[in-house]
Amino acid sequence: MTIDERLAELGIELPEAPKAVGKYVLSVQTGNLLYTSGIGPQRDGQFPYQGHLGSELTIEEGQAAARLCMLNLLSLIRDAVGSLDRVARVVKVLGFVASAPGFGQQPSVMNGASQLLIDVFGERGRHARSAIGVNELPLNIAVEIEMIVELLPPA
Amino acid sequence: MTIDERLAELGIELPEAPKAVGKYVLSVQTGNLLYTSGIGPQRDGQFPYQGHLGSELTIEEGQAAARLCMLNLLSLIRDAVGSLDRVARVVKVLGFVASAPGFGQQPSVMNGASQLLIDVFGERGRHARSAIGVNELPLNIAVEIEMIVELLPPA
Amino acid sequence: MTIDERLAELGIELPEAPKAVGKYVLSVQTGNLLYTSGIGPQRDGQFPYQGHLGSELTIEEGQAAARLCMLNLLSLIRDAVGSLDRVARVVKVLGFVASAPGFGQQPSVMNGASQLLIDVFGERGRHARSAIGVNELPLNIAVEIEMIVELLPPA
Repeated sequence: MTIDERLAELGIELPEAPKAVGKYVLSVQTGNLLYTSGIGPQRDGQFPYQGHLGSELTIEEGQAAARLCMLNLLSLIRDAVGSLDRVARVVKVLGFVASAPGFGQQPSVMNGASQLLIDVFGERGRHARSAIGVNELPLNIAVEIEMIVELLPPA
Repeated sequence: MTIDERLAELGIELPEAPKAVGKYVLSVQTGNLLYTSGIGPQRDGQFPYQGHLGSELTIEEGQAAARLCMLNLLSLIRDAVGSLDRVARVVKVLGFVASAPGFGQQPSVMNGASQLLIDVFGERGRHARSAIGVNELPLNIAVEIEMIVELLPPA
Repeated sequence: MTIDERLAELGIELPEAPKAVGKYVLSVQTGNLLYTSGIGPQRDGQFPYQGHLGSELTIEEGQAAARLCMLNLLSLIRDAVGSLDRVARVVKVLGFVASAPGFGQQPSVMNGASQLLIDVFGERGRHARSAIGVNELPLNIAVEIEMIVELLPPA
């Protein structure tokens, strides 16, 4: 089964790849590693999850935000390398969660992104991860995620 | 002298490797690089250093927290690759320090982790590093550290 | 045209490479990748941009801070590898911006660093990037940046 078939089986349609909101590119490949930029929870050019966990957003909303970041990341990776079947392994995920004072459940929020990777890629989706709280993110988004994936050569 | 002998000489007993507190793995190897997850100051399943530098914790406590993060990282690296003698070089350390308003001594805190690497690995332990202040970390831990090490092939 | 010639054409004189303010080194090379430490906006041993975006500093000052971080990074890379002509590609930039509550223009601030890379390196300077807000940085600096560059072999 291809990853696109797996996505269809899961009922997932990837969003259009995000636009870079600054003087950078969405990803750079070096050797067989692809480094992505930090990506927010975008959909149709909007940012539906804004605000801080622990005050304005529930854990469930935070998890949905992290999952939406990851859907955008998968979309940009597919655009960059041609097919998600080229993902040999998700190496590293670094997630920043906008956190109100006293909020300490960043890992639970980030599980929204991590679970998607496991659902889509299985063993290849099992990744190292850091979950970090911060006081402010660009455009008041709730979550920002960057990642590194190891690629297979083009088919 | 092996690294285990060096640890014994320093009177250091590594803790059990930490458990992942979420849907991720503790490390992923790609090529000859091992990427770790972000790890907190764990001991016997507890987090003895919680709170913010600059208010609840002293610099010395912060340094002890950073050192304990690194002891956990060394433990998980040993578990992942079989022996710390396989560490050819510590490449990069990224440390986040929970910081009260006005606290600016994150590098001093992170030296607690960096000094341990130099003590244990000597020249091979000299690493690039970033020390960043954040308002909140998971479970109210004081420090979270992730790292990248270059590996030698298995013996 | 060499990169040094390009710098001269742009009227840019790189500062002396920064000093590490802790028990780490400014960069580590592994394979053909150079990982830098997180670097602040230093000039002549001083930190001219201190404070938080959104309160003490304007966007323009933040951009100048980010640009000064990058000038220091270019200086340390040149010192580390002998010549900026060895930069095959800027792979990744990770920037932290000290942010007052409600500040969400971290990408605009980081453009001060990104634009410099494009001006100096052209296509080779186009990089993946994350821009993150944090509540406190070392020594109250406004911006801290770390990066990864892919190197060509020595000439």
